[in-house]
Amino acid sequence: MNKRYKATLEYDGSSFVGWQRQDNGFSVQEAFENALACLFPEKPAAVCSGRTDAGVHARGQVVHFDAQREISVYGMIEALNHYLKPHPVSILGIETVHPDFHARFHAKTRKYCYEILNRRARPALLEGKVWHINKPLDLLAMREAMQYFLGKHDYSTFRAADCQAKSPIRTIDRVTLKEENNLIAFTVEARSFLHRQIRSMVGSLTFVGLSKSSPEYIRDILAAKDRSFCGPVAPPEGLYFEGTIY
Amino acid sequence: MNKRYKATLEYDGSSFVGWQRQDNGFSVQEAFENALACLFPEKPAAVCSGRTDAGVHARGQVVHFDAQREISVYGMIEALNHYLKPHPVSILGIETVHPDFHARFHAKTRKYCYEILNRRARPALLEGKVWHINKPLDLLAMREAMQYFLGKHDYSTFRAADCQAKSPIRTIDRVTLKEENNLIAFTVEARSFLHRQIRSMVGSLTFVGLSKSSPEYIRDILAAKDRSFCGPVAPPEGLYFEGTIY
Repeated sequence: MNKRYKATLEYDGSSFVGWQRQDNGFSVQEAFENALACLFPEKPAAVCSGRTDAGVHARGQVVHFDAQREISVYGMIEALNHYLKPHPVSILGIETVHPDFHARFHAKTRKYCYEILNRRARPALLEGKVWHINKPLDLLAMREAMQYFLGKHDYSTFRAADCQAKSPIRTIDRVTLKEENNLIAFTVEARSFLHRQIRSMVGSLTFVGLSKSSPEYIRDILAAKDRSFCGPVAPPEGLYFEGTIY
Repeated sequence: MNKRYKATLEYDGSSFVGWQRQDNGFSVQEAFENALACLFPEKPAAVCSGRTDAGVHARGQVVHFDAQREISVYGMIEALNHYLKPHPVSILGIETVHPDFHARFHAKTRKYCYEILNRRARPALLEGKVWHINKPLDLLAMREAMQYFLGKHDYSTFRAADCQAKSPIRTIDRVTLKEENNLIAFTVEARSFLHRQIRSMVGSLTFVGLSKSSPEYIRDILAAKDRSFCGPVAPPEGLYFEGTIY
């Protein structure tokens, strides 16, 4: 009989075309489903909590899949991590869930973190893992500006042109901004996000951080509900999918 | 007229044969001196604070060199980082120092950090940047054990066979052990260290952490003053040269 499983994944997105299978390159989904196929002859499909773009990393991507063979979750983790070995994808945990569980539809809160290395010298140790901004960012101004993101808003300004969501309305539950040793971490939590929403938010926030705009700029471009008002989209390598709460 | 400069370097040691020039591969010293040679026709030699082995990283290696051409330190940093660009080496700062300043001989305290990822699943994001230990470490036991390292001791047990130091006596000033999200960071400070001393200390500490030995094991093998009593030497990829105080 089929059982449904929920898996938590860490991956380095640098070498992938993103989570989703594509014709133009190797995806995390393909790596993961290839590993599943080594263990389960029915070749289970994996459904993720949130699709990540090319270059975006995950510390806690959640996926679900169905499998028939009876096997302990411990044995499953060990075997799948073995089959995944050539790739920078690692399974942190697997648990059995109710057959109705859905990694995408049942998500209550998704958390992302965007990391910026803010110093003159380019990164030697964190290359490909952070956005390097070589001019000083004004964190107080950014903290003031990011408050405008909180709550329910029309995020038309911050969605990619190809975003397929029916509604541009999203509710941001929490934002934080921390700094340690020139490494700035911006976290954001919401039930769901539009395509490129976080990278668009971060790009516009850095406009404020670089004193090109006042904090009220965020309020104004949000109110404009117009993509053309968005600041530069932050590059993918600083973005981490941290996890999902169900 | 010659001026002496002190530079602070970050590097990812993965692709290097270590700090020092060698016949069998590319060293950090060669990368750095090649960059210096692009800027200064006299091809300055660089002297480092502490030689790092192949695979060992640095967040704050310190080097000194002499140069004749008059150039601002800001311009020097920008130019050298440009010439270093293909390599994972980045100059965090340069300052002029007294002509007698010596990066190695004048060091008062050197600080290293050893990082261990302690979880079942192998690292996807920190591959090559940590030692992965997949069995749970007992941090309380390790904290108790590491106290035996403090103070002045004969470190014969913890030095590599090829160590060229005249005396095996070293004084450890400070040790700390922190854990966050399964990432364990062991820091150690001393005026100087023997060859492979820190990796030998960490390897033996993990014996205690894995409950293969009691904390007193560290006291006993230290007292033995015999290399054959040393635990396994920890791999280079978890070691970071953090900095030097003068």
